[in-house]
Amino acid sequence: MNGLPLDHVGVAVPSIQESAATYESIIGATCSAIEELPEQGVNIAFVGSIELIEPRSSTSPVGRFLKSRGPGVHHVAYRVSDLRATLQDLNTRGFQLIDEEPRLGARGHLVAFVHPKSTGGTLIELVQHGP
Amino acid sequence: MNGLPLDHVGVAVPSIQESAATYESIIGATCSAIEELPEQGVNIAFVGSIELIEPRSSTSPVGRFLKSRGPGVHHVAYRVSDLRATLQDLNTRGFQLIDEEPRLGARGHLVAFVHPKSTGGTLIELVQHGP
Repeated sequence: MNGLPLDHVGVAVPSIQESAATYESIIGATCSAIEELPEQGVNIAFVGSIELIEPRSSTSPVGRFLKSRGPGVHHVAYRVSDLRATLQDLNTRGFQLIDEEPRLGARGHLVAFVHPKSTGGTLIELVQHGP
Repeated sequence: MNGLPLDHVGVAVPSIQESAATYESIIGATCSAIEELPEQGVNIAFVGSIELIEPRSSTSPVGRFLKSRGPGVHHVAYRVSDLRATLQDLNTRGFQLIDEEPRLGARGHLVAFVHPKSTGGTLIELVQHGP
């Protein structure tokens, strides 16, 4: 059994504009338009399967992540077919959820995060492509 | 253009045996047999598209990574069809390579690492599935 498929890897960067060319060059894909997610305190753009994430302020969670750890992988995202059911299942099995309900994330998809405390150190995002 | 496909995400853990159940539970895949890679100072096992990496000593690179950053994402791996050609191309374009030549990695695949200094902070592995 191969399990949930990888959807993307989120990488925190100080500036999408300054980082895009490097990722385009390695991965061989063109950076998407920048999407603003003010509720999450970030702007994001995709280069292939990499989500570049820049903080909208230094005090946002991603701003603090960059300050303490520097640029690099911020989260790993898996694709699920029924996010609500997956969250209920994880909750039942004792996983600590950052989002107990699906919310609207990048690219109009439903997303939810699982706390790294219950995943062995990795911030995990679950993504349901819609509709 | 979607660019290089993700192959796996490498996650550093203190103990594969102690971490496997958590990852199996989230991802819904069974952990593979543990593979010993003494030349790299690690043991590894796969849970779906996650490579769990445990250090064979606290002074190995992954041992030092765990000590300074704690458990979490260690590298992101992309699949390429011709690793030698990709490395020559990246070298020509000024990327700093940890491995200038392909070497034998996990699961008998050819692998090479690109230094995070030239990728904006992410340790990137390139994998050519063989033969």
